[in-house]
Amino acid sequence: MVAFLANEDEAARRYAEWTGKTCRDIGLRFELRQVTRTQLEEAIIEANEDDGVNGIMVYYPVFGDAMDQYLQNIVDPAKDVEGLCHTYRFYMYHNIRHLDEAKTQRCIIPCTPLAIVKFLEHMGIYNSKLPYGDRLHGRTVTVINRSEVVGRPLAALLANDGAHVYSADVNGLLELNRGQGLHLKRYLTNECSLTLEEALARSDIVIGGVPAKAYKIPTAQLREGVVAINLSSVANFEDDITSKASFFVSSVGKVTTVMLERNLMRLWQYQRKARAEAEVKETDAEADAVAEEEQAAKAYA
Amino acid sequence: MVAFLANEDEAARRYAEWTGKTCRDIGLRFELRQVTRTQLEEAIIEANEDDGVNGIMVYYPVFGDAMDQYLQNIVDPAKDVEGLCHTYRFYMYHNIRHLDEAKTQRCIIPCTPLAIVKFLEHMGIYNSKLPYGDRLHGRTVTVINRSEVVGRPLAALLANDGAHVYSADVNGLLELNRGQGLHLKRYLTNECSLTLEEALARSDIVIGGVPAKAYKIPTAQLREGVVAINLSSVANFEDDITSKASFFVSSVGKVTTVMLERNLMRLWQYQRKARAEAEVKETDAEADAVAEEEQAAKAYA
Repeated sequence: MVAFLANEDEAARRYAEWTGKTCRDIGLRFELRQVTRTQLEEAIIEANEDDGVNGIMVYYPVFGDAMDQYLQNIVDPAKDVEGLCHTYRFYMYHNIRHLDEAKTQRCIIPCTPLAIVKFLEHMGIYNSKLPYGDRLHGRTVTVINRSEVVGRPLAALLANDGAHVYSADVNGLLELNRGQGLHLKRYLTNECSLTLEEALARSDIVIGGVPAKAYKIPTAQLREGVVAINLSSVANFEDDITSKASFFVSSVGKVTTVMLERNLMRLWQYQRKARAEAEVKETDAEADAVAEEEQAAKAYA
Repeated sequence: MVAFLANEDEAARRYAEWTGKTCRDIGLRFELRQVTRTQLEEAIIEANEDDGVNGIMVYYPVFGDAMDQYLQNIVDPAKDVEGLCHTYRFYMYHNIRHLDEAKTQRCIIPCTPLAIVKFLEHMGIYNSKLPYGDRLHGRTVTVINRSEVVGRPLAALLANDGAHVYSADVNGLLELNRGQGLHLKRYLTNECSLTLEEALARSDIVIGGVPAKAYKIPTAQLREGVVAINLSSVANFEDDITSKASFFVSSVGKVTTVMLERNLMRLWQYQRKARAEAEVKETDAEADAVAEEEQAAKAYA
């Protein structure tokens, strides 16, 4: 895996080095490449074309504006361990879970939202007695953050698994849910007239992703037995959250890194399969050519 | 053409109505569809799939964040009159001017940057005695705005035609140019240590795109005979600009609409060609099937 660092963010550098260590611990090769922001696009394209590279990630923000989304789409989907290119996003938002019609290749999901799904599965909040794809049926969730990298994909994943999701950010509240009916149907988004306080009072699960130290979700506004997950780099919950929550996750960083490794392994398998199929095709084409020649030789014999 | 209005912006509505009038004046059908922001994605997908729709545009901002870039990529490239999907952007930034290897289909370029190229051609700033693709050779340009919708694509287009471009925004100055050498080579971007004032003093062409009434480019900082183009909705140049500029364009809106019509016509031609080819393919396949049957019949005769 190659990771590109094109900003001067010390926290990103430390996180990158730590990711590198974690990868090496389990035998994955991880290379951090430091480039300037104006070199980044070409550097990604080079890594796309390099058969020795199986996965690519970028530490954002780089330009901090729409240019960053452009760069996310420069990464080859076959190597996009972060799942941030348009193809994977579109499939995720539309609840399309496989890349192929035969359903042999599952889609790549962004690492942080995926980590939270894994936490919820591990804690039994995903009910494994329900059918796959419906395991959050009846659950209400508030996600405070609607960025394209974390909050919105997370809200979509949970809604596509059957939850009723309130998605909050500074611009207000949206409501995501699949409504009634068929399993694996895509969620719909609607404007929501509730206040955040009202949404919190209804929520079995509250996920905080506000990158501001001063911001705290008041424990008093939460349900007894709530599942509280902090995905921000600072603490979004008050200290007394443990007295009210049935589960409290203070940090998701380590599991996020494991998801990165999982995505890398998955992409590596897909790449190996694609290469094997390309070889078979070539061999078939050669065999066809030989057979044709033999037939032609017979015809003229 | 279908245009989607999913915000409450009165200026956007007036512009949309005016675009509709302009289209109808020359016999193009234009339909404004008002939807809520949460309906927009599905509405675009419906228009993508509707054979009666040849072109699609959206009045941004809708969500005003990365979600808007996601929506730009929902529009089918075959109907993207604004040229804002990743495919067209990538080709533009990489100076790839055709969609096909046979070079029969030219790429779609975003309307506002394209309008400015047309102004510069019309004013003789593009030197038609130079080869196509090199006609801004030796020209220096400052573009004040680096949005993904206007400023950055414009800077790229001008640099790919041979200009030395200073791209300015609140975060500082970048420098775009192809360097020396081959025609149609892609431009490179570098950080620039000049101040904006120094860049302006070197520029033959200055393009202002700052959406703030208080912002004015000081005429005193510009070269005698400068080409001054205002692409903002407010005046970025001082009133005395006409005393110093060889050409001054105070507004590019009308030409932008013509470029929209041009893009629509182009996409319509491509769609017609694609349909015709699909029909030929079908007919060929039928003919092949008949020939095969005849041959089989002969073999058994």
